[in-house]
Amino acid sequence: MAPRSILITGANRGIGLGLVKQFLKNEGIQLVIATCRNPSKADELNSIADSRLQIFPLEIDCDDSIKKLYENVDTLVGTDGLTVLINNAAICSVYEIEGQISRTYMRQQIETNSVSTAILTQNFIPLLKKASAKNGGEEYSTDRAAIVNISSGAASIGYIDDKQPGIYIAYRMSKSALNSFSKSCSVELAKYHILVTAMCPGWVKTDMGGENGWEEVDDATEKIMKSILKLGAAQHGAFINSSLEVYPN
Amino acid sequence: MAPRSILITGANRGIGLGLVKQFLKNEGIQLVIATCRNPSKADELNSIADSRLQIFPLEIDCDDSIKKLYENVDTLVGTDGLTVLINNAAICSVYEIEGQISRTYMRQQIETNSVSTAILTQNFIPLLKKASAKNGGEEYSTDRAAIVNISSGAASIGYIDDKQPGIYIAYRMSKSALNSFSKSCSVELAKYHILVTAMCPGWVKTDMGGENGWEEVDDATEKIMKSILKLGAAQHGAFINSSLEVYPN
Repeated sequence: MAPRSILITGANRGIGLGLVKQFLKNEGIQLVIATCRNPSKADELNSIADSRLQIFPLEIDCDDSIKKLYENVDTLVGTDGLTVLINNAAICSVYEIEGQISRTYMRQQIETNSVSTAILTQNFIPLLKKASAKNGGEEYSTDRAAIVNISSGAASIGYIDDKQPGIYIAYRMSKSALNSFSKSCSVELAKYHILVTAMCPGWVKTDMGGENGWEEVDDATEKIMKSILKLGAAQHGAFINSSLEVYPN
Repeated sequence: MAPRSILITGANRGIGLGLVKQFLKNEGIQLVIATCRNPSKADELNSIADSRLQIFPLEIDCDDSIKKLYENVDTLVGTDGLTVLINNAAICSVYEIEGQISRTYMRQQIETNSVSTAILTQNFIPLLKKASAKNGGEEYSTDRAAIVNISSGAASIGYIDDKQPGIYIAYRMSKSALNSFSKSCSVELAKYHILVTAMCPGWVKTDMGGENGWEEVDDATEKIMKSILKLGAAQHGAFINSSLEVYPN
């Protein structure tokens, strides 16, 4: 078995692009929908020659853009609904306690990483419900219906200490808010058997993660992809790493 | 000993107003600064006859209002600095996963409860540093310099389950983001010995908490006040309840 369809946001580079490639290796998956701000500039994504890949623009901070994407995806998936939503799009900027005081700058990270992700998720719930309803029973799986929120170790309030760089204050706030949303979703969507989990992808060598990351994109995303396909009731509502181990909030 | 000065935001009603009254009972405290959106309408706050109480307007979502408050407080406290900042101002509105999808509505709660609280805190750090610097040594206490972030059980991602009402999704997100900010502050301000803690006040019978709350405002705020005065190194960076017990994030 494999999920019928997967939607991945922020898929023009980094972990999002890596996941598109990894999921396309799985022949059971019939549709991979990749979104990014500006598809015309997403050269590597566009270069993937696979008829199962559909690319759409998404400005996640814009409600009209989310609605347009919803209409496009709804048309594509039809009565099957959307099987898996991977909320990967995110930004990360430096914000320090004693640095520049900027409401706009702090707000922007929380807007994109938490609020916009929540709004997009809310919009897509009907399509996930449709996918889940095609299965009966008590099963939770990515083959049935799932939301995977790509979180971060920075979401872990318990892990914040003086060994971590104190330059990602706003990013941490945004990812903790995302984890809260993820947990709330898991509770509220349990009645539909939509699996919801927040996953920390590890420190990956992407544009965001930088060169000091622990893993190359291909290795990291292969691991994340395999773990996503293994998700079950035990991970529903959890905050986990890419080895499915529970992370503290 | 007692803190020389205390600033309490959102002090026109509920826990904020209760804390103003409680701290004024302590004769060692020389200055209680209470803020609210519209002091001219804060009848109960205005009725408190105590020359140590100073009331100032604060629109916490407005940078100019925060700056004006800073100037007023700076003038009042002078070279002594501000001893304790109690970030109490907050809003709480219903937001459900499958309810109305409203970016503006979700954002507003995070703006006020997390972003604005962070911005206000950043602005007041110089005054807290001034207060802390008057003491030498390694001590952390509310007599020296402290930031108390009034959090909520809703901040606890670990506690979100199907026994909690699922109508406070955005409020939860905002309070988890606040806890993240609080923990980051504790790490970054440790070098100045400014104590930082996030405190869950319990479920109090306020306008926000409603009639089913566990405690009356007077009882709850007496307990919170006593606990705030007891804060020490053990609570620095912690998320605690009003009995100083550690709460899970």
